Amino acid sequence: MEIQTYLSERRRMVDEALQTYSLAAEGPFARHIEAMRYSLFVGGKRIRPILCLAAGEAIDASGAATANLLPVACALECIHTYSLIHDDLPAMDDDALRRGKPTNHVLYGEAGAILAGDGLLTWAFDLLTDPCRSAITAERRLAIAHCIARAAGPLGMVGGQSLDIASEHSDISFDTLQTIHRSKTGALITCSIEAGAIGAGASGDQVAAMVQYGRQIGLAFQIVDDLLNVTSSTEQLGKAAGSDAAHGKATYPAFFGIEGTRARAADAVSQARDALAAFDGKADPLRAIADYIYSRTS
Amino acid sequence: MEIQTYLSERRRMVDEALQTYSLAAEGPFARHIEAMRYSLFVGGKRIRPILCLAAGEAIDASGAATANLLPVACALECIHTYSLIHDDLPAMDDDALRRGKPTNHVLYGEAGAILAGDGLLTWAFDLLTDPCRSAITAERRLAIAHCIARAAGPLGMVGGQSLDIASEHSDISFDTLQTIHRSKTGALITCSIEAGAIGAGASGDQVAAMVQYGRQIGLAFQIVDDLLNVTSSTEQLGKAAGSDAAHGKATYPAFFGIEGTRARAADAVSQARDALAAFDGKADPLRAIADYIYSRTS
Repeated sequence: MEIQTYLSERRRMVDEALQTYSLAAEGPFARHIEAMRYSLFVGGKRIRPILCLAAGEAIDASGAATANLLPVACALECIHTYSLIHDDLPAMDDDALRRGKPTNHVLYGEAGAILAGDGLLTWAFDLLTDPCRSAITAERRLAIAHCIARAAGPLGMVGGQSLDIASEHSDISFDTLQTIHRSKTGALITCSIEAGAIGAGASGDQVAAMVQYGRQIGLAFQIVDDLLNVTSSTEQLGKAAGSDAAHGKATYPAFFGIEGTRARAADAVSQARDALAAFDGKADPLRAIADYIYSRTS
Repeated sequence: MEIQTYLSERRRMVDEALQTYSLAAEGPFARHIEAMRYSLFVGGKRIRPILCLAAGEAIDASGAATANLLPVACALECIHTYSLIHDDLPAMDDDALRRGKPTNHVLYGEAGAILAGDGLLTWAFDLLTDPCRSAITAERRLAIAHCIARAAGPLGMVGGQSLDIASEHSDISFDTLQTIHRSKTGALITCSIEAGAIGAGASGDQVAAMVQYGRQIGLAFQIVDDLLNVTSSTEQLGKAAGSDAAHGKATYPAFFGIEGTRARAADAVSQARDALAAFDGKADPLRAIADYIYSRTS
């Protein structure tokens, strides 16, 4: 399993689909759509859409099943991108750099960036519910849209971001840190996998195993993110290194040190692999992604 | 047809449903949910949800049909509320007063208000796609969610708000003013009616007639809004009167004067009533709402 080849091939599929689906920056709303497109195409590893496709492939590896999941995968990337645009705003983290490029509000102004985020979030649900986009049954597409809305909403990603902002420069417990991680980052990663499994026709047991896998790699992803923020340079990350400390944010390394944090990431990856025990070789990309998340450097 | 009685009864139904569905402000995300609830329950005429229910009743006046539409009606109010919270932000219209009360960002800060809006928008799609909320078929619920996502998105409400902000303090054509009105206000009003019709099982012809009605009352609503901004006091409106002029916004009265603007509103209302010609007495609330929109004073 050549994970780098797999990731770059799936990333290309997602990028092509995003180009196909996304609105052209023309007509009366050209400037707004341009702002949406800027952040959508400025780069990014496309981890969430790839996880969605890989989860689907673990159930049904036919090309048709993967094609049906592409709108779902793209919607997840739109939601992730909107969350980054809003996180970077002056009223939130006030970051000028993201993926090595100016953040949305630096180029399109605060109002433009708020609306670009709003537009991407709304357009994600347009993609998810568009009857022309996919042959997945209406029941399953509704279940997918619901799991994504739940994960991205007030008890998931948005709630987590609120709690994260409110917890800056204050001593928080490890419990609160876990709640922030699970909701702000973990929920959307987990539902990317759940949505892929549902779309590919997984059984209830299979969906439950996938959710378990998703929770563990979501956790591993966030732990490694905390670690990289401490140990990497701004150049390597494409965003401000050390920003967690600067914002007074609680992180895993602050609780457990560098080595203790690495051990926890390794444990989460190992539990993620265990959750896939009942799946055959079609789940090998998911297994390899778990390892990749542990060893990534940016 | 006692329109005031009808409106206050439907408004009470919507308020009760919002209370039933909405999240409790407790647990780790309590402050975020409190910010969402503040704007959702601070007041409001609930025009969009009432239009959704009235459109459904024009097709199927049974109580069960109305009950099935309540989650859709509430989702529309959440989307409308999110748009007001974001419109009021310092980076947008910078309004401190809405419905006679402090705006969201005055109480919860800029970050809190941005996230309260994000939370309401996302939660609206949670409500729309939740399998436990309604007996409307999956196909129809998907069609409803899609028409709402389209209307609220980059080619609809969000696009219109972007264009509106970009057009401040500049000479715009009447064409551009119409585009702003149709997208920023008209699209969500029209789709409130379309969603109600779809949810109640309307035929294609019936949906088309409802969309036609919706476009005309959306137009009338916006024209009257422009008019009230010029002719009413801040106390009457519950928000800053004269703010359009202060923001250098183009409006109907600026193009056509007060009397010319009134005539255009009357014409739109008359066309809205014409669009309902094929409907029986069950559409009387929709007819009365068209008249009410023309004569409202706040």
